Amino acid sequence: MTDENRGPDLYRESVVIDGLNVSNWQSPAVYDSLHAGSVTAINATIAVWEHYAETMDNIAQWLRRFEERAGSIAQVSVVQDILDAKRDGRTGVILGWQNATPIENDLDRLALFHKLGVRIIQVTYNERNLLGNGCWERADEGLSNFGMDAVREMNRLGILIDLSHVGDQTTLDAIELSERPVACTHANARSFVDNRRNKTDDALKLLAEKGGVVGATAWPPFLRKGWESTLADFGDAIEDMVERVGIDHVGIGTDYTQDQTSEWFDALMSQQGTKFSPRRLEYPDVPAHPEGLETPDKMSNISAELLGRGFSGEDVTKILGGNWLRLLREVWRD
Amino acid sequence: MTDENRGPDLYRESVVIDGLNVSNWQSPAVYDSLHAGSVTAINATIAVWEHYAETMDNIAQWLRRFEERAGSIAQVSVVQDILDAKRDGRTGVILGWQNATPIENDLDRLALFHKLGVRIIQVTYNERNLLGNGCWERADEGLSNFGMDAVREMNRLGILIDLSHVGDQTTLDAIELSERPVACTHANARSFVDNRRNKTDDALKLLAEKGGVVGATAWPPFLRKGWESTLADFGDAIEDMVERVGIDHVGIGTDYTQDQTSEWFDALMSQQGTKFSPRRLEYPDVPAHPEGLETPDKMSNISAELLGRGFSGEDVTKILGGNWLRLLREVWRD
Repeated sequence: MTDENRGPDLYRESVVIDGLNVSNWQSPAVYDSLHAGSVTAINATIAVWEHYAETMDNIAQWLRRFEERAGSIAQVSVVQDILDAKRDGRTGVILGWQNATPIENDLDRLALFHKLGVRIIQVTYNERNLLGNGCWERADEGLSNFGMDAVREMNRLGILIDLSHVGDQTTLDAIELSERPVACTHANARSFVDNRRNKTDDALKLLAEKGGVVGATAWPPFLRKGWESTLADFGDAIEDMVERVGIDHVGIGTDYTQDQTSEWFDALMSQQGTKFSPRRLEYPDVPAHPEGLETPDKMSNISAELLGRGFSGEDVTKILGGNWLRLLREVWRD
Repeated sequence: MTDENRGPDLYRESVVIDGLNVSNWQSPAVYDSLHAGSVTAINATIAVWEHYAETMDNIAQWLRRFEERAGSIAQVSVVQDILDAKRDGRTGVILGWQNATPIENDLDRLALFHKLGVRIIQVTYNERNLLGNGCWERADEGLSNFGMDAVREMNRLGILIDLSHVGDQTTLDAIELSERPVACTHANARSFVDNRRNKTDDALKLLAEKGGVVGATAWPPFLRKGWESTLADFGDAIEDMVERVGIDHVGIGTDYTQDQTSEWFDALMSQQGTKFSPRRLEYPDVPAHPEGLETPDKMSNISAELLGRGFSGEDVTKILGGNWLRLLREVWRD
């Protein structure tokens, strides 16, 4: 049996973790696709621009959803929940944020949301918040005093710090300050594709040295052929990242936006999430993921792609989820 | 009659405007003191760390207060309201913020709050917010994109921009960007007393060139003798500021904190207004204003002090309120 033919078996046996999925959680097709793709666990974005009350209500909706969809999904609070999800053939849902805005100005709310299950928090999304700057902000002077204390508190609680959309200096500050390894759940290298959302070599090097993991991302603008990219281009991104940071520090972060509407994208790309002064980034009306990797049910194609490139079975397992699992163990310490 | 003896008459005839009063608005003594001091109008701080809903409720309380205390105070929405207050022997209350936090991430709320009477907004208070950095923040890279749009929107609406507690670069950015003159409602020169809360010579020069006004402040740590300061030290601060920016650009901003509790000061000085990591600035348990200027009923001492230093009656009138009046006319354009 050739390596490529081993793909399906290897995938089926592996713990598959998607470092970032920001799909339309109201859409039943999203859960069908995760199930069809045998995705073990996802970092599910439940807040981008939302504040305190909205996020609380949102989590209330998720608690109901976990009840209603108990056959196919389960909340992930501890690492064992991921292993249980694998055993049960369900998809574990890690509640994650792409912005620290839900805590507003109160760091005590980190413990409150941690108690409710929030396990991954991105320091900031694209622009400025109280902690630091995003990658599309005018300038970036790094973490604020509040941001430094937020990092310390996330360390204390065992919340994984995500730096994907974060500005260059804030990213470096957070990696240096954090006493636990951190993640870029969905980003490629800026030296691979020159986009401010991709990470600098300095940041990637430091993150890996401190035990972090980068989720190579399949969001087309961060791949070499842009909106024309295919599975092979995502393979290139993974291979590039492995060369840069080493096989133990690369995962997958698809950045799936399944069934999201153009209105949702408009709000996402508007300044601070409001419509006052929309600074729209360029994307097609219906952004699509690369051919061969359109939705989570296609994720098994990744293992075949990587085996075809000569990665060993062990290495593919690390990339598919093994590295995420190791990182979550180290950070959550549950 | 000597100049000093003319003090009381001159004061009585002048429009007296206090650029900053952040007293305990629940305390009846505050209104008694303003009345006894014949203060024509004050910039009354109604938000420092507060967010959207709290500030809305706060304004609702003020509307009730304006009804209940109609004999002694009146809301100021247009410049004519100040002149009417003078005529009626009442104190005009300008609703002002020391932080832009009440709009949260939505610039449309500036128009909403303007409609309710908010007429003066400080870009940020001591630390970081979405617009820019405060003077006690780790670093200051200037206004964010959101902050630039906020300045433009405040210009459009006719809201006076206050830069007293704002970081050095954010201060310069705002002065440069604003199409209307701006204020430091309560600050002295850093060259006069070296404190990060006092303003740089660069900022003061640029502010004056663009028609702005600085309210020399009587908050003791910004005076030469600190907590031992007296009325004469405040006289020095005024004289220093007149020398720096010219007689047409100096007003008064006492920074009165009448009847505030030590709990209020603790919250004020805590990081982002919460108790998580209080970064307490040094002040005595019961901070007191300079001898001879303890509360608003003593404000008439200022005119005697200035006349005694050789200022002309015309100049004293400018400092007591004439310059604020001119600035508000230019900015509010009502």
